Amino acid sequence: MTTDTTTGLVTLEEITAARERIRPAARVTPLFEVQHPSAPPSPPHAASRLPISSPPASRLFVKAESLQPMGAFKIRGAFNMIAQLSADELRRGVITYSSGNHGQAVAMAAQLLGAPAVIVMPTTAPKVKVEGARSYGAEVEFAGTTSTDRRARAEQLAAERGLVIIPPFDHPHIIAGQGTAGLEVLEQCPEVDAVYVPIGGGGLLSGVATAIKRSKPSVRVIGVEPEGAPTMKTAIAAGEPVSLPKTGSIADGLLTIRAGDLTFAHARAFVDEFVTVSDDAIADAVAWLSRHARLVVEPSGAATTAAVMQGLGPATTAKHIVIIVSGGNVEPAAYAKYIGG
Amino acid sequence: MTTDTTTGLVTLEEITAARERIRPAARVTPLFEVQHPSAPPSPPHAASRLPISSPPASRLFVKAESLQPMGAFKIRGAFNMIAQLSADELRRGVITYSSGNHGQAVAMAAQLLGAPAVIVMPTTAPKVKVEGARSYGAEVEFAGTTSTDRRARAEQLAAERGLVIIPPFDHPHIIAGQGTAGLEVLEQCPEVDAVYVPIGGGGLLSGVATAIKRSKPSVRVIGVEPEGAPTMKTAIAAGEPVSLPKTGSIADGLLTIRAGDLTFAHARAFVDEFVTVSDDAIADAVAWLSRHARLVVEPSGAATTAAVMQGLGPATTAKHIVIIVSGGNVEPAAYAKYIGG
Repeated sequence: MTTDTTTGLVTLEEITAARERIRPAARVTPLFEVQHPSAPPSPPHAASRLPISSPPASRLFVKAESLQPMGAFKIRGAFNMIAQLSADELRRGVITYSSGNHGQAVAMAAQLLGAPAVIVMPTTAPKVKVEGARSYGAEVEFAGTTSTDRRARAEQLAAERGLVIIPPFDHPHIIAGQGTAGLEVLEQCPEVDAVYVPIGGGGLLSGVATAIKRSKPSVRVIGVEPEGAPTMKTAIAAGEPVSLPKTGSIADGLLTIRAGDLTFAHARAFVDEFVTVSDDAIADAVAWLSRHARLVVEPSGAATTAAVMQGLGPATTAKHIVIIVSGGNVEPAAYAKYIGG
Repeated sequence: MTTDTTTGLVTLEEITAARERIRPAARVTPLFEVQHPSAPPSPPHAASRLPISSPPASRLFVKAESLQPMGAFKIRGAFNMIAQLSADELRRGVITYSSGNHGQAVAMAAQLLGAPAVIVMPTTAPKVKVEGARSYGAEVEFAGTTSTDRRARAEQLAAERGLVIIPPFDHPHIIAGQGTAGLEVLEQCPEVDAVYVPIGGGGLLSGVATAIKRSKPSVRVIGVEPEGAPTMKTAIAAGEPVSLPKTGSIADGLLTIRAGDLTFAHARAFVDEFVTVSDDAIADAVAWLSRHARLVVEPSGAATTAAVMQGLGPATTAKHIVIIVSGGNVEPAAYAKYIGG
């Protein structure tokens, strides 16, 4: 099961195979309707006592990846990649340099598959992330404060100990794993005509867009980035991945400096539109999801909701919109602030 | 489809029929596993690299009624009752005297079925509840500040205008509707051996206990009340419903003064155990659900989680425990306080 040899892009077969492979570890997360923030509050179902039938409004559905076992979609890709390692590779173990949701997902997937895992974190990593990784049996290694420091240390350790590096997004097995969320969207909401996906490094976007465009090309796919980290939008405009001089946003899971080569290729091939949202809009969306969807969502996970609330893309013209809510791991104190406490 | 004529208790057939009837209005809510707060953090799946296999731990599953369209299980009972009214009754309309989740559910169900609805609220009702009811097209009527005031006003209006009163819990159609959640629990978690259900007036408890005990009597059903409103526990001890001199708790949906006659009969017939939880334990459970289940839950909805966290009932002995998380409508400022902001 290899990528399309002509284009280098992930195939639908790879995503379908990933779906079977990740079944022991990842959940088919709920997809459910929420009140569209810019539509009138009329019920979608059954009879109405209105004398005239109103025109079909835009309906909005949340795909709640925040309800994955470790609170984010990342387990899909991490498990899909680690489950394809050889017995010998599993015995030696895996390593990654993300302290966020990907790091936790690698720790969890490795534990499920009986492989040792090393997670390289900055010396400044919050205790909750260190303990989270350790609770899945992973070894935590500290290295500097920058992602360059962490990556260098991970590569050094991988070489020394024969560990396999599990990259956060730029690998076909990661992309195929994340794409399983796209297959679920098509099954859970067959009428879908627009899907909003958040962009960090572009793994989720690439996977979901590939699953959807290779299955039903009429569905529009919209990638959403914070204004302070328009990594993929900049790459698409430039025709190649470029390094942003700096990034900044409350959406700390979406602060990638440079798009991956592979995720860029998938985004260029399969994504219709790229939009950006401000931190204020993201904070409002975190509060809106708390109140109206009763979901605890981290800022990165609320970016797609923010885009719909801002009317970006086909937010008021598409009939069945799915927003992917990618994660729910947020510090309680920060969360309390967002929801207006 | 009438209640068991020998016992006066709701039958399994009534709950099964309710399930079909409420399909246009109520969601089959997600049921998913969460980390048991008093079990070690080992993964339940797949291979483990531990040299010895650990004994099977207690597994914990959340039934997230907070993800119903209006954020609580109440739509099940309200829709089941209103959908059985005659065309003439629907034309005249319905009325209720609950300003909480039941009132919102009656408003929503009535709108879906094309019936006018009146919700009687205290003159002190928060704006959000008044606007919530109005957003579903209901008429809001204000009457005094006590539940006696509201009930009297509702009975007067019902008589004057020929409205059908939709009671919050003590009616077989309400109980059968709430019981549909119990059928879903049995299907979504067939191995279940203990179910924790919150008790306000006892409608949800009665319905769920009836559905479960009439299907699979070996499953233990545990009713959970706040320490400040042990209405059903007191009634069971007394052998009949008794009026508590006062009630008080942060779980404002569970502050019933007196159990219903019908809900008391169901609880006595079908519930194994009654436990109570403190407000501190409930507040801790709200925070725990936010962090570990990524669900926004109101205090009333967190009482069952509190009971498991306190080790009450078979919390550490049952193998597959389901906690019903009944609702997620909570003021953002209060919620922010509970989660430790």
